[in-house]
Amino acid sequence: MTATQIAAAVNARETTAVAQVEAALARIATYDAIQPQIWISRASAEQVLAAARAVDARIAAGETLPLAGVPYAAKDNIDVEGFETTAACPAFAYQPQASSTVAERLTAAGAICMGKTNLDQFATGLVGVRSPYGIPRNAFNRAYVSGGSSSGSAIAVAAGLVPIALGTDTAGSGRVPAAFNHLIGFKPTKGRWPTRGVVPACRSVDCVTVFAHDTTDAGLVDSVLAGFDPADAWSKPLANRPISPRKIGVPLRRQRQFFGDAESEYLYDRALANLATLTEIVEIDIAPLQEAAQLLYGGPWVAERTAAMAQILSENPDAVDPTVRAVVEAGWDKTAVETFNGVYRLAELKRHADLLWGELDAFAFPTTGTTYRVAELAKAPIALNSNLGAYTNFVNLLDMAALAIPAGTRHNATGFGITLIGPADTDRALLTLADAYLAKANLAPPPPLDIEGHMQTVKLAVVGAHLKDMPLHWQLTSREATFVEATHTAPAYKLFAMADSVPPKPALVHSAEGGAAIAVEVYELGVAEFGSFTVEVPAPLAIGTVTLADGSSVKGFVAEPRAITGAEDITHLGGWRAYIAQKN
Amino acid sequence: MTATQIAAAVNARETTAVAQVEAALARIATYDAIQPQIWISRASAEQVLAAARAVDARIAAGETLPLAGVPYAAKDNIDVEGFETTAACPAFAYQPQASSTVAERLTAAGAICMGKTNLDQFATGLVGVRSPYGIPRNAFNRAYVSGGSSSGSAIAVAAGLVPIALGTDTAGSGRVPAAFNHLIGFKPTKGRWPTRGVVPACRSVDCVTVFAHDTTDAGLVDSVLAGFDPADAWSKPLANRPISPRKIGVPLRRQRQFFGDAESEYLYDRALANLATLTEIVEIDIAPLQEAAQLLYGGPWVAERTAAMAQILSENPDAVDPTVRAVVEAGWDKTAVETFNGVYRLAELKRHADLLWGELDAFAFPTTGTTYRVAELAKAPIALNSNLGAYTNFVNLLDMAALAIPAGTRHNATGFGITLIGPADTDRALLTLADAYLAKANLAPPPPLDIEGHMQTVKLAVVGAHLKDMPLHWQLTSREATFVEATHTAPAYKLFAMADSVPPKPALVHSAEGGAAIAVEVYELGVAEFGSFTVEVPAPLAIGTVTLADGSSVKGFVAEPRAITGAEDITHLGGWRAYIAQKN
Repeated sequence: MTATQIAAAVNARETTAVAQVEAALARIATYDAIQPQIWISRASAEQVLAAARAVDARIAAGETLPLAGVPYAAKDNIDVEGFETTAACPAFAYQPQASSTVAERLTAAGAICMGKTNLDQFATGLVGVRSPYGIPRNAFNRAYVSGGSSSGSAIAVAAGLVPIALGTDTAGSGRVPAAFNHLIGFKPTKGRWPTRGVVPACRSVDCVTVFAHDTTDAGLVDSVLAGFDPADAWSKPLANRPISPRKIGVPLRRQRQFFGDAESEYLYDRALANLATLTEIVEIDIAPLQEAAQLLYGGPWVAERTAAMAQILSENPDAVDPTVRAVVEAGWDKTAVETFNGVYRLAELKRHADLLWGELDAFAFPTTGTTYRVAELAKAPIALNSNLGAYTNFVNLLDMAALAIPAGTRHNATGFGITLIGPADTDRALLTLADAYLAKANLAPPPPLDIEGHMQTVKLAVVGAHLKDMPLHWQLTSREATFVEATHTAPAYKLFAMADSVPPKPALVHSAEGGAAIAVEVYELGVAEFGSFTVEVPAPLAIGTVTLADGSSVKGFVAEPRAITGAEDITHLGGWRAYIAQKN
Repeated sequence: MTATQIAAAVNARETTAVAQVEAALARIATYDAIQPQIWISRASAEQVLAAARAVDARIAAGETLPLAGVPYAAKDNIDVEGFETTAACPAFAYQPQASSTVAERLTAAGAICMGKTNLDQFATGLVGVRSPYGIPRNAFNRAYVSGGSSSGSAIAVAAGLVPIALGTDTAGSGRVPAAFNHLIGFKPTKGRWPTRGVVPACRSVDCVTVFAHDTTDAGLVDSVLAGFDPADAWSKPLANRPISPRKIGVPLRRQRQFFGDAESEYLYDRALANLATLTEIVEIDIAPLQEAAQLLYGGPWVAERTAAMAQILSENPDAVDPTVRAVVEAGWDKTAVETFNGVYRLAELKRHADLLWGELDAFAFPTTGTTYRVAELAKAPIALNSNLGAYTNFVNLLDMAALAIPAGTRHNATGFGITLIGPADTDRALLTLADAYLAKANLAPPPPLDIEGHMQTVKLAVVGAHLKDMPLHWQLTSREATFVEATHTAPAYKLFAMADSVPPKPALVHSAEGGAAIAVEVYELGVAEFGSFTVEVPAPLAIGTVTLADGSSVKGFVAEPRAITGAEDITHLGGWRAYIAQKN
């Protein structure tokens, strides 16, 4: 059920807030078996049921509440009374004295906070891998990044745990995870939703956002959260600017960046073809937008992050995620003169963009040009993150509203999305435009959730030179393989030390007779990494299937028959590590 | 004649632009004998007459021009085609390729630029003493500062040379000189008048301003200059916000700063008494405004000046006025982190101020708490300058409109003024409020211009140990005395070398017989400095009156009769310098 449906049903007393919260608790518990790391903290059942009873009492007393009984999640950089706020940095954690304005307004509207979600630490990242609380992975393919920084909130909605979840967005953090997880990601105009009680990233451009399954829910949340907050210096009086979308701007073809991802390029073209049935599509030079985007991390604005994290960077720098730290420490060296020169350039670029609105009604850009595997991110944590911001970084700096919407599914099940972007205060107009597009696009529903994770990562049993601390172990570590367990094979294998193998390697041979349980280590790695690993395995070894002590089967090292020619049977030692120890 | 009157008469063909320009040329030539240093460059008579003929031709062709035939002056940090732009720094000077937007609009409206006026270099100062082109002095008392940085423009209007002149204003530069010179100084809302073609001071808060004798002229100029300029990134669409002044805010009495100037305090109280007959006066806590003011020079915004002057500071620092350089070089050390923290604090302070507008319709503050002599400024060039910004520095940072208006005359003839301040876009409303106040205040007309400069400075003839390079010369330099001339007395004096005088000193004695022309040096110094100098003159010397070779009389060293007891008559040497030379 969507938030709109839940609220309608609770207000109509067809269900209760208590029932909704109980159902959400059950869904959350189920998903805990899959990705518990999407949460940083959760309310107890007692807490949320008490809150739900209070909502039911208000309904019983005759109130109608726009979000009656709607369970929601909040990114853990947004203060919600009763929860610690961590910003994904345990050393930074604090107990807020009061809720943020947005949490206050949600509570007043009848919504119930189920928990606080994981994020790229200090909301610095578009990937979701930069957190000591674990890596939330794409809900539809766990080999892939969830997108960030609002990773946990996006997955909580994508996995159906809660119908809506709050994120934040400075560089795209409320849009990129929406795209990757087949969601609506609504980044309102700066100042439309108050940011009081939100841990700042770049305070001057930070926005609170919402993830939802449809534009109706996004609009419902906007109607609750939009409005002036005198306690928030960045809050603006509410305004709504209409647009009649006759002309939609898209990047010049040569400026489109898909980073080699032809599938995303195809999906974007398909989205534009659908839009073209609704409005005129105009190719525009996006170089000024790209230049503005560069200012966010390449220019002085990174010092906003440094300012926000100044205390922890000074007092406890090791508590900061190394990638986040590398990014934000660059801000110390930026000068005031550079900053004001950046302010001037941004003003010129904003003027350029504002003049575009005289000719165009909105932009329709890819939300991202591609997506990445978690393992790929680990190899180039800053560069690939930057690629993901190619179409998002400029939006807040140039004071635009943005609505990320689904636009298709890659064959790997991750979502591809487009973002509708308009000038400040076109928030409601973008929702309407999105409705028209989505009706036209008639997208297939999202693929099933990645419950098993088996399609995209592979478990591999190693038995000899790839064991930890052995000479070829680097072939696993360089592929970001993660250690799963040290175990044994089923008691049905013989182990041979091969003759003339350099470095020394064993051959594991299934043997119906005289077999024993041989020590193995099981690793998990991406399917592509598994493929490239397999390529490098030399004869007479091979990658086959190995039965483990618990009866399960994993991929693993096996051997051609020739492997035992001249080989020494070492089965009695129980494993390769014992053989090497004895030999030395 | 005011600009309004000139334009009406030219449009009605009761006079011509040529006649107006000829009259302005004559007035300017006359004032050149008094303060030529108010100008940095001037148009030739041919230039302005050609421009005037073009205006007359447009009128003859049937056009009606809002500023037909109005001569004006422009501060020399505003580009006007045909004039070099110097910003009062010869090494910075350049020939602009085009006029600024404001100069373009004035020309299109029929106004004629007579010349470019002196200023505190790079518009950095509120005093008018920071220029290598000389020190424009208060038009009504040349011992006093003109106010700055728009010094020359204010005096050009105050002295009646042109009815209107453009200034600029970042920290009060368009208001302080208005107050000191009995003028209207109109600082419009930021972005109302385009700043394209203006040398930046703090680019993000710079405004172009106008000096005028009445609000009608200020309003007329506003009607010509206000309006969006797409080429200026800081320009805003034109907006007018009405106010119905029921409540006017004034500082808490304990927060009012007059720096010991009881007369200014009296004049402010009198102004408030007049205002109180029109609206309710409400004392407000101005601490947040004062804190915002501190950000301009004490905080990161000084780095805007550094950014604007980066090239000359790096390549040719000695070309920069030493005081200006001391101020702006502080900006190199400001960091981006400090800057963003300043931005955040300013946002909070602006929110505070904006909430005040819910309760108040405008502020009425002193424009300055006091004024200073030029000589005083030289002793504490930064501290006293800061005092003058006590009520002006916060206005642009907090995005307010301001209108400096006369509010009385100090006994030293300098102007005291108040400034009406409103939120952005209340420009026209402030002009209306000023009309009501001025009608009520019914101020005496400004005093006569200081043509002679005799009331406030004193010419002093020195003859002995105070001559240049002599042992007591420092008593003049420490009082900022300026050298006027080396001349002789009338041929009616004897000179004696006194006995036992340490250091050796002469006595100048008027002598009807046997007198000669004795070499003297004439210095000019402030009347207060003259007083303190006189205090220090030891017997038997005294300060009396000395007749010079040209028959004029100045104050000068004379001697009691006892001075010649045992003294040596050295009249035949013609002066003390010859005696010392002979003696050594």
